[in-house]
Amino acid sequence: MIKGVCMKELEERIRKEGTVKPGNVLKVDAFLNHQCDVELFDHMGAAWAEHFKGKTITKILTIEASGIGIACCAARHFGNVPVVFAKKAQSINLDGDQYVTTIYSYTKQREFPVIVAKKFLSPGDHVLLIDDFLANGKALQGLIEICDHAGATVEGIGIAVEKGFQDGGEQLRKAGYDLDSLAIVKSMDAETGDIEFA
Amino acid sequence: MIKGVCMKELEERIRKEGTVKPGNVLKVDAFLNHQCDVELFDHMGAAWAEHFKGKTITKILTIEASGIGIACCAARHFGNVPVVFAKKAQSINLDGDQYVTTIYSYTKQREFPVIVAKKFLSPGDHVLLIDDFLANGKALQGLIEICDHAGATVEGIGIAVEKGFQDGGEQLRKAGYDLDSLAIVKSMDAETGDIEFA
Repeated sequence: MIKGVCMKELEERIRKEGTVKPGNVLKVDAFLNHQCDVELFDHMGAAWAEHFKGKTITKILTIEASGIGIACCAARHFGNVPVVFAKKAQSINLDGDQYVTTIYSYTKQREFPVIVAKKFLSPGDHVLLIDDFLANGKALQGLIEICDHAGATVEGIGIAVEKGFQDGGEQLRKAGYDLDSLAIVKSMDAETGDIEFA
Repeated sequence: MIKGVCMKELEERIRKEGTVKPGNVLKVDAFLNHQCDVELFDHMGAAWAEHFKGKTITKILTIEASGIGIACCAARHFGNVPVVFAKKAQSINLDGDQYVTTIYSYTKQREFPVIVAKKFLSPGDHVLLIDDFLANGKALQGLIEICDHAGATVEGIGIAVEKGFQDGGEQLRKAGYDLDSLAIVKSMDAETGDIEFA
């Protein structure tokens, strides 16, 4: 029930404040990934907690930058489990053994490394992946690859906005992942600004 | 009182889980900026709410990536005000008018743009700046510059860990900013691993 209310809330926000840009870009920077509505993030966390109820979650894994705020607000609803965010650049703060893979970011128009320190993911971990967007699924595939390398179990995937007209979601569901997208955009039109949800 | 307890908690975590690396690097990636302890972040938010009590805060401004989780957890303690995070790279998701400045990141060893869409900062805003670290203060100076351009009022600055032996904090206090660092490292030694707090 919480989930249904939150899905409606998120769809309404996208309809009201989202804008469609050429190149399949959906801008929701007013509340999701530049300015952040933490009350909405809290509701999203509650919705995922309802969906993944009964599963043991020991850690939330996300990727910088837009996933971090959502993941940190959601963690409260999973008993304050640690949130690990994968980094997209090397830094002198990163050392020791790392899991590293490479993804292509459509919005940044270039390849990024995805880096997680090995000490923060172990075979005993039951991981919930969280991110703001799912389109072609490249970022999530990078995170899943890192969980596989660590021997950690991916218990589920929580997404705010899935672009249902791209195939990332379908691929993940076919592969058997428990994917919970709170808003699934079926189609959108940059000329009229229309957004249709699944 | 809440603040005193949180300061003690943070110092203990730094002492226990932090490591000192050559080049004045203090690694606190186990709970602050790679893996995130959201319960600690919540306590930090409560501490800042106590410190900045009586001030009107309409917005929290931070910078990607490590500030985001802390800022989003803290926002609950300021009536769920919006959190805006400055971006360090251009993206096809960023358009329209922007405030842009440039900072040098010591940990990434290169210059970064600092970008905030103009629509998310206005002269009516009373801003609390939040970040994980304060060393030479370059990132904060970038955020302050952006607030100045927007005509927004910087009401205060909440920092998790200040490196008291670098001059960023002193400069900001001298300039009259209400700066609240929850842990101030007076000295640290990469050889012995010793960390002394102010």
